[in-house]
Amino acid sequence: MNVKIDMNSDLGEGFGAWNMGDDRAVLASVSSANVACGYHAGDPSIMRKTVKLCAESGVAVGAHVSYPDLVGFGRRNMACAPQEVYDYCLYQIGALQAFCLAQGVSLQHVKPHGAMYNQAARDRKLADAIVSAVKDIGGVILMGLAGSEFVPAASAAGIRFAAEAFADRAYMKDGSLMPRSREGAVIHDAELAARRVVQMVTQGTVTAEDGSLIQFRPDTICLHGDTKEAVEMAATVRRELEASGVEIKPLKETM
Amino acid sequence: MNVKIDMNSDLGEGFGAWNMGDDRAVLASVSSANVACGYHAGDPSIMRKTVKLCAESGVAVGAHVSYPDLVGFGRRNMACAPQEVYDYCLYQIGALQAFCLAQGVSLQHVKPHGAMYNQAARDRKLADAIVSAVKDIGGVILMGLAGSEFVPAASAAGIRFAAEAFADRAYMKDGSLMPRSREGAVIHDAELAARRVVQMVTQGTVTAEDGSLIQFRPDTICLHGDTKEAVEMAATVRRELEASGVEIKPLKETM
Amino acid sequence: MNVKIDMNSDLGEGFGAWNMGDDRAVLASVSSANVACGYHAGDPSIMRKTVKLCAESGVAVGAHVSYPDLVGFGRRNMACAPQEVYDYCLYQIGALQAFCLAQGVSLQHVKPHGAMYNQAARDRKLADAIVSAVKDIGGVILMGLAGSEFVPAASAAGIRFAAEAFADRAYMKDGSLMPRSREGAVIHDAELAARRVVQMVTQGTVTAEDGSLIQFRPDTICLHGDTKEAVEMAATVRRELEASGVEIKPLKETM
Amino acid sequence: MNVKIDMNSDLGEGFGAWNMGDDRAVLASVSSANVACGYHAGDPSIMRKTVKLCAESGVAVGAHVSYPDLVGFGRRNMACAPQEVYDYCLYQIGALQAFCLAQGVSLQHVKPHGAMYNQAARDRKLADAIVSAVKDIGGVILMGLAGSEFVPAASAAGIRFAAEAFADRAYMKDGSLMPRSREGAVIHDAELAARRVVQMVTQGTVTAEDGSLIQFRPDTICLHGDTKEAVEMAATVRRELEASGVEIKPLKETM
Repeated sequence: MNVKIDMNSDLGEGFGAWNMGDDRAVLASVSSANVACGYHAGDPSIMRKTVKLCAESGVAVGAHVSYPDLVGFGRRNMACAPQEVYDYCLYQIGALQAFCLAQGVSLQHVKPHGAMYNQAARDRKLADAIVSAVKDIGGVILMGLAGSEFVPAASAAGIRFAAEAFADRAYMKDGSLMPRSREGAVIHDAELAARRVVQMVTQGTVTAEDGSLIQFRPDTICLHGDTKEAVEMAATVRRELEASGVEIKPLKETM
Repeated sequence: MNVKIDMNSDLGEGFGAWNMGDDRAVLASVSSANVACGYHAGDPSIMRKTVKLCAESGVAVGAHVSYPDLVGFGRRNMACAPQEVYDYCLYQIGALQAFCLAQGVSLQHVKPHGAMYNQAARDRKLADAIVSAVKDIGGVILMGLAGSEFVPAASAAGIRFAAEAFADRAYMKDGSLMPRSREGAVIHDAELAARRVVQMVTQGTVTAEDGSLIQFRPDTICLHGDTKEAVEMAATVRRELEASGVEIKPLKETM
Repeated sequence: MNVKIDMNSDLGEGFGAWNMGDDRAVLASVSSANVACGYHAGDPSIMRKTVKLCAESGVAVGAHVSYPDLVGFGRRNMACAPQEVYDYCLYQIGALQAFCLAQGVSLQHVKPHGAMYNQAARDRKLADAIVSAVKDIGGVILMGLAGSEFVPAASAAGIRFAAEAFADRAYMKDGSLMPRSREGAVIHDAELAARRVVQMVTQGTVTAEDGSLIQFRPDTICLHGDTKEAVEMAATVRRELEASGVEIKPLKETM
Repeated sequence: MNVKIDMNSDLGEGFGAWNMGDDRAVLASVSSANVACGYHAGDPSIMRKTVKLCAESGVAVGAHVSYPDLVGFGRRNMACAPQEVYDYCLYQIGALQAFCLAQGVSLQHVKPHGAMYNQAARDRKLADAIVSAVKDIGGVILMGLAGSEFVPAASAAGIRFAAEAFADRAYMKDGSLMPRSREGAVIHDAELAARRVVQMVTQGTVTAEDGSLIQFRPDTICLHGDTKEAVEMAATVRRELEASGVEIKPLKETM
């Protein structure tokens, strides 16, 4: 029996006349795409084209939901009430689902973006709000940070949760991400990143920043696509996973 | 067998801290609500509350789709490409449908708002774009101006179309609306409006501006709710229809 | 020599088709208006009309600058960088100044709105950013919370600062506002509010929540205008101030 | 005495996380920059940086005012009332002027963007609205299409107008632009474009599409910067103008 893992990346992050990243290159490496839904990026025309690209590439589609902060690309913390977060999630998920429906594909997952992701990972009330929106839509998987508040929130509501690891990030011995402010938090070496991901997927472990080996078995690996280096890292990670006998498959086939 | 007719009105047209109209009063008179979807009015929180209000009142929900012109309330003509109009419709319909799903109600219809309504009524390409979005969503009725380009567009695509009449407008002898620029185009007398609607619904005729009696059998009657007078007219029309033995029922029960 | 005081209120807080408050009623009571600049409320057409109303009423114009959060009415904390806050302030101040210039009035002051006001009152870096924008515009007064981080920030930069008191709020013995979460934080009795304001202006003192009398001499009194009660309180405060021999004059005549 | 001409290009057309064009490369060729003001592109932070870049490069700053259509990049015709167009212009001009003031440079000109440019060039009422905003700001030059409705509008109001020619466009024998829909409307050959511009500037003539030589003496030449080819054409035009003894100088030094 082959080991399988999902690889995900953000897609469709242009807006109007503006482009971002090389979506076609990224699609060659990943099995799931987090598609921007208009709040941090992604207008309706880009959403349609991105869903179409995913459908043609056999890549599963997820809703990349965000705070309403276009000029800040959804990266700035905002004090939204949990009810507002629920409402924003439902709105964006529904909008993307319509494009999925029109193209004959199903919506696989929901992944919060940027500041919403980070705030909800630490705030159970926000995590619950997102979980509640995902549950009310039904049939979709929530994707979020491994070991975060998303885990108990999803568990309490009885929805499926995909724990995400980052190919390019160092981990603390408690399994949390090393803060970006610390040296060594971000891994730039594609080969090193690939080796670490292979270890996570095939051994269920990761070497923490203090050198200790910890248990760590993610459901999906997050890759980036906004720079040439990021696209190359994604390709390297996929190549090394496949070389180790791992199959790259979307969450809906692995969970 | 009783005659039945649908009465529709725009709802949920606030935004953020701003309110518009008296939605609760309107809900007492109509059977279908056109709910703003965020492009001309209606943020996600208002959409949720409005769908909930409709569900509690037994009023059917429709998506009131618009051009992206919040500051202009969707009332200004814009030169959007048909593909863009399709994309905007799909986005908004999907967003509202998510709130319907979460509240356990079905989306009954789609009605274009303001400038999109007026431009598509005269432009087959735009009408086709809207029809195409409605068709791709599936299972919903398009509501639009009687005798307009919506009719052949919906017919060609094989989707259900509800022809709309306005309680407060005068009609020309060809069945088109008298332009607002002409005196007498708008009817302010609630009793007169009610008598005309009763005639449309029970006789299938309307007295045109030149005094001639023309065939005219709408599927739904549009009422407004943004002023106290409008709310009173809606109540009067309903009362007179019921006094004439007409049942007020949503489109999904009449078509 | 008469005692003089400025009374200020928020104005022009509609957007597009939406209204808020009764600006004409408020203008009869205050000497300075905080005019929304498009980020939390106030589109360009409303800004023009509001500046015109102020000019006709002899009420001084200020820029009510906000975070870019239209759907949240600028009331939600956001993690904007100080440089972004500077940029947002400069943008909005300039936009309003153009309408002042076109109408032949001068811009008197700048007052941060909502969450920007509250966050900067406690965060010197944000206060410095706002102060820096006000300084770069030149010739205008910064209006902000008495006893807050605005005071040292304005002092360090050498710009004029108008300390603001709230007619409807209780104060702690250190001169800070009683948190809204505590009972008694908001004063609803217009006569009581008026007596407290008269005491502040004529005696330079306020009775704190623990009953102690503290020194408190504001440069301007903030009144609200979004409800009928608020408009009545503004009128009552003005009437009582004038009955006590106090002249209501804009900051530019009192500082 | 040397012949002098202004060369202008659009700048600062990114938004939030998105970039567009190579502003530094363009600045090496032109003498005037049309800076986006937030309505079709350009957020406050980008506006600040762009004005700073212009100041450092000795390039004059103009306000590139647009309809409020971020997702459409200001390129779609909209049925805005002349009063709205005036309001939108004043708002954007004022916003940019604040950044100019903060950086110690003066605002040189105003140039409408995209659909506003095209619609006002043919519609005297819209041209009058823009002219009125420029006049109310005072001290700035309006830049617009040669031979268009801008000319009589500016003349009637007594404001300075700079007639613009396009380096990469063919002209009809009446001096109007050949419609883009016709073959040959756009010139892709940089050397040919440069020769045509040199002829306009030094001879005051252009060869129309029918081969006839017509009088044509623009005040400024528009170059683009959104593609590598466009940047090269700008450099080529400048080089050939200088080789012909023409000095490239901003409008404020030539008019």
